[in-house]
Amino acid sequence: MPDLGTPPPAPFTRDDYAARMARAARSAAEAGLAGLVVMPGPDLAWLTGYLPTATTERLTLLALSADQPPRMLVPALEEGDAQAAPGAGAVTVTGWLDGQDPYRAAAALLQPKGRYGISDASWALHLLGLQRALPDTSYSGLSEALPMLRAVKDGPELERLAAAGAAADATYEEVLKVRFAGRRESDVAADLARLLLEHGHSQVDFTVVGSGPNGANPHHEAGERVIEDGDMVVLDFGGLKHGYGSDTTRTVHVGEPSAEERRVHDIVREAQQAAFEAVRPGISCQDVDRVARAVITEAGYGEYFIHRTGHGIGVTTHEPPYLVEGEELPLVPGMCFSIEPGIYLPGRFGVRIEDIVVCTEDGGRRLNSTPHGMAVVA
Amino acid sequence: MPDLGTPPPAPFTRDDYAARMARAARSAAEAGLAGLVVMPGPDLAWLTGYLPTATTERLTLLALSADQPPRMLVPALEEGDAQAAPGAGAVTVTGWLDGQDPYRAAAALLQPKGRYGISDASWALHLLGLQRALPDTSYSGLSEALPMLRAVKDGPELERLAAAGAAADATYEEVLKVRFAGRRESDVAADLARLLLEHGHSQVDFTVVGSGPNGANPHHEAGERVIEDGDMVVLDFGGLKHGYGSDTTRTVHVGEPSAEERRVHDIVREAQQAAFEAVRPGISCQDVDRVARAVITEAGYGEYFIHRTGHGIGVTTHEPPYLVEGEELPLVPGMCFSIEPGIYLPGRFGVRIEDIVVCTEDGGRRLNSTPHGMAVVA
Repeated sequence: MPDLGTPPPAPFTRDDYAARMARAARSAAEAGLAGLVVMPGPDLAWLTGYLPTATTERLTLLALSADQPPRMLVPALEEGDAQAAPGAGAVTVTGWLDGQDPYRAAAALLQPKGRYGISDASWALHLLGLQRALPDTSYSGLSEALPMLRAVKDGPELERLAAAGAAADATYEEVLKVRFAGRRESDVAADLARLLLEHGHSQVDFTVVGSGPNGANPHHEAGERVIEDGDMVVLDFGGLKHGYGSDTTRTVHVGEPSAEERRVHDIVREAQQAAFEAVRPGISCQDVDRVARAVITEAGYGEYFIHRTGHGIGVTTHEPPYLVEGEELPLVPGMCFSIEPGIYLPGRFGVRIEDIVVCTEDGGRRLNSTPHGMAVVA
Repeated sequence: MPDLGTPPPAPFTRDDYAARMARAARSAAEAGLAGLVVMPGPDLAWLTGYLPTATTERLTLLALSADQPPRMLVPALEEGDAQAAPGAGAVTVTGWLDGQDPYRAAAALLQPKGRYGISDASWALHLLGLQRALPDTSYSGLSEALPMLRAVKDGPELERLAAAGAAADATYEEVLKVRFAGRRESDVAADLARLLLEHGHSQVDFTVVGSGPNGANPHHEAGERVIEDGDMVVLDFGGLKHGYGSDTTRTVHVGEPSAEERRVHDIVREAQQAAFEAVRPGISCQDVDRVARAVITEAGYGEYFIHRTGHGIGVTTHEPPYLVEGEELPLVPGMCFSIEPGIYLPGRFGVRIEDIVVCTEDGGRRLNSTPHGMAVVA
């Protein structure tokens, strides 16, 4: 079933991108940075709408600072593509030719001294080139220097995140109807991928099907194991729709669960609910994590909750803010993140329940609305 | 048609990976490096067989040095996956937990002083973390420090590259039968992707369909332009099969070409042939580029050949050696690379012809064998 129900959102405009770049440059100045250096990846896509065909050894670099208009250096043979990006009208794009030193060209766009924020996933090769060309500059990872740069979503972004969440929910509802017992995890994973695409995703990032003991490995993807009657099965799937992410987890059971399985599932459900109810402007990220962790610890399973409670989501499926011990940043209206506590019993089974949640002025709003109860599948 | 003809190659073993890691550590020592730092990407896959589900802000790091056995640090919740990698038996794998400082844990695997080679695509965020945790270490990009680490392919690797090339050739032969005129570039690109997958590719990296003036942009992918009778069309496509790359280009014509189109195509074909015939052990990379460039320059089109002549291919579709002016490294038997000269006439059309070529003791061997003549399509 193609995704006929929802019209695509209005595209972001040159002015939207110009505003994002201006805000980023201003935030950098306020943080005491000389500016920002952004290479291909989600930050560049968010700031300019430009997503090169591939991220390669050829340098592409956007330079932002409060006292200069945005400038972007690209390989000459990608200049046409860069100029065609929806935000390109707000950037001066320059090409460099094979055989030229791109780091010297980049140095001309930056100050000889000062500290720059650099996009996290910039290649080390390119950072080393900048450090060599500009030995008196220093760098901080963008997620450390300006962790909240992309964290607060505006209306059109939340609209896209809600659409991605709805598509993930529809995927979950339909996957409940497929056969589990006797099929491989990878078969069910393929069903999830197909359904996400049918519901308008352009990209599938992960389709976790963790059955029985595999569910106790929170990052197990999907393997050759044949799902059996009596298995718990963790389903965690997501990707991008209209450029924004989905990520949801439900734990289902093949046939009737045991009393212990029900109990563990109930504890995780309670932890997820408690953390959700804790969401409000001003609460720190780590406090949301602590709320979920307290429920599981008090129930006696603290040592089996072996990951953080959540992560931000936007133009990527994992980004700041991180709901983790040590993250003292407060939640702000418009932040969007997962709440996904879990319990993992090694060699036996795992349970995780995950919704995407937006922080609003009044508290949390879920972007996933399928039931949290343990669905019984066939 | 599924890829039933060729059985999958025998998998690489723990010993294969152990030998690669030992060779890499030895090469690093010979180059005066304290060791190598390898993060998720093609180098890690080649060295250990481990390809994490996603490359993220969570540090995964392989440390290699001549005086220590290989050690790998991974996020605790990915430890099971890492241990399941085919080369994991040759590495000591350690997990770090959310909330711990992974760079401190990484520092314990490295010397406090010395110069390390670091995989090119390591995240800048992680390099900055290492530089902070070990301020007396310094780093070089792996492709700069040990450019030829993966460049010389052994027999089982060449077998895989030949299989990928044969699949790309079959794709080309079948795409000649599809309709071009009246369809969008993106439709033909989808045909190419489907055919690559049908012929056993696990991943499609690019499907360039550059029709008419779009062919004059060498990195144009495929857009909404409707292909017309009379168009030149550049077809450049490839991806991974059994973990190794394909990459081939042919330029076809919709209907009968003009005399000028034939002439430009002939010049590119002659340049490709001349560069191929120049391949032999000991010739420098830049000399192969110069041979191709001389043919095009002498024909009066030098200014329209705006990229290097070729790039290596292996577990990625772009890697050293680069056939480019300034690259003085000599070819060595077992090196595998593209030879892909082109002429790009802005606003009009482009021509490129590309084969993957292996350097053998006796000269070049092509891994693509479809005809170079300009095919006429409908």
